[in-house]
Amino acid sequence: MSDLPNRIDIYEEGPREGFQIEPGPIATADKIALIDALSGTGIRHIQICSFVSPKLVPGWADAEDVAAGFTPQAGVSYNALWFNEKGMNRALAFRDRLSITGSISLAASEAFSQRNLNRDRLGNIEAMRRQTAAHLAAGVKVERIGVMAAFGCNFAGDITPAQVIQTVEDGLGIAAEADQTISDLSLADTMGWATPARIERVVGEVRARWPDLTLRLHLHDTRGLGIANAHAGLRLGVARYDSTVGGLGGCPFAAHKGAPGNIATEELVLLCEEMGIATGIDLDALIAAGHLAERIVGHTLPSATLRGGSLGGFRTRIAA
Amino acid sequence: MSDLPNRIDIYEEGPREGFQIEPGPIATADKIALIDALSGTGIRHIQICSFVSPKLVPGWADAEDVAAGFTPQAGVSYNALWFNEKGMNRALAFRDRLSITGSISLAASEAFSQRNLNRDRLGNIEAMRRQTAAHLAAGVKVERIGVMAAFGCNFAGDITPAQVIQTVEDGLGIAAEADQTISDLSLADTMGWATPARIERVVGEVRARWPDLTLRLHLHDTRGLGIANAHAGLRLGVARYDSTVGGLGGCPFAAHKGAPGNIATEELVLLCEEMGIATGIDLDALIAAGHLAERIVGHTLPSATLRGGSLGGFRTRIAA
Repeated sequence: MSDLPNRIDIYEEGPREGFQIEPGPIATADKIALIDALSGTGIRHIQICSFVSPKLVPGWADAEDVAAGFTPQAGVSYNALWFNEKGMNRALAFRDRLSITGSISLAASEAFSQRNLNRDRLGNIEAMRRQTAAHLAAGVKVERIGVMAAFGCNFAGDITPAQVIQTVEDGLGIAAEADQTISDLSLADTMGWATPARIERVVGEVRARWPDLTLRLHLHDTRGLGIANAHAGLRLGVARYDSTVGGLGGCPFAAHKGAPGNIATEELVLLCEEMGIATGIDLDALIAAGHLAERIVGHTLPSATLRGGSLGGFRTRIAA
Repeated sequence: MSDLPNRIDIYEEGPREGFQIEPGPIATADKIALIDALSGTGIRHIQICSFVSPKLVPGWADAEDVAAGFTPQAGVSYNALWFNEKGMNRALAFRDRLSITGSISLAASEAFSQRNLNRDRLGNIEAMRRQTAAHLAAGVKVERIGVMAAFGCNFAGDITPAQVIQTVEDGLGIAAEADQTISDLSLADTMGWATPARIERVVGEVRARWPDLTLRLHLHDTRGLGIANAHAGLRLGVARYDSTVGGLGGCPFAAHKGAPGNIATEELVLLCEEMGIATGIDLDALIAAGHLAERIVGHTLPSATLRGGSLGGFRTRIAA
């Protein structure tokens, strides 16, 4: 009836995503403290910052200080986000501390590309060709395709699996031209349109077309369905998920202010651990990191698990 | 792969549950305004108040005024909650406005019964026998069994399907002795221990034992898994759910203050409508009622759909 994975890999994006969106300012030392706390939870992938224009994203004007300041832990892979060659070069200054690989970022909705990037589909393909070439010229492999708006779009409405497949084909074409092998295909519910049924349809059709591509889900909880969508992914055997501690971050595409952004890492870990799916993460340590994140940003975060707590403590007390 | 129902019945408990737990005081007129707003959304079942001791639950000292003051809408069934004969008699004064039926309320965890009711399993069965007799003496049918702590318990830990089945047998025994036919078996995740896997196991075993009993799920979102659990119920064809507008209410059993209580009606309606399962509810009208509830209680409520909004409006604008 389902194909649950034995274990999953969680890609923590809370520091990068949260500190970009929080009104702030957040002290550099606090950003580093959260990254270091997360490093002690068993999480194996942490996105620590964004190398973007400080004019566009003032919250990441201190990206270099954060990248230089955190304490790398053995067994944890740290990465960063960038959108152009300049950002990539800033990241490359930290190649001893960060895992540096390139992405081909496309949108299944052309309307979304046009509104957000001012590029149509072919324009975006051309931009990703150039970006891929720049990565290769710098000695950076391009291993990942990210498909934004893979489950629906505020500007185009429902997105069909065929549109997603076309977008993945575009990305694979760019990779093939550059002789790159894609090892990670990320499907993003950028604006919170996914339902478990849409996850099943899109993942099902993508996987039928490319059975050997490793899938990743980047889910937003804009309308509260994020954890149900993650569960739909788990049932399909998808074993890579992006999430943010506490549900840090937000959604610029919601109807009202204050909508949640990415799914909360604690809720995903609780769901998995209670269903026998290993995450390698200590949930109580993660909840402590979530409470640290709340103290840093100065308000409560959306994760219900931060309020409800884990279940392991009850079992330990009952058994004692 | 799944057995989704074509339509579901939602039992709205926001007014009763929320105004019981909110620190308040909430004006009687505001309680009535929320009930009347909900009556216009297409919801067909609304629990409007609790006839309990005003000393124990000061928030429902005005239960009679609320029961007398709301405007009944055709096609909507209104009900109330009570725990003893005195409460039942207070409710019966409104039998022209309220749907009055009795419940047999048991817990799958004996530890929970002892902590919360100071009764062991047999003591609770005896109490429910007496309560059933009191209902019948007053001409009130007993049609429902409610099983608390059906998926886990803070005081007993994990609960097995066998414990749930034993509890249902206890309830059916009480009903049979009194010659009552049970038409609604409610399984409650009182303390937020459910996962989709536990829903599948418990619902599966209960249904295998009593294939003709109509099941209802009463789910709490204490740790953020509520909507994934509801989706697991939908996949199994369960077509009755309790929920609260905005996620009104809370959880006295959580590790930290501020944990969500019941699942939010808006999130459940969004999940269903987007998957082709009819609820009869106008989601935008419901979201408006949720925002009214937030103004009444003076703070934001947990429902993410209240922030994210519905998806129908986007489709209408795109099609225009």
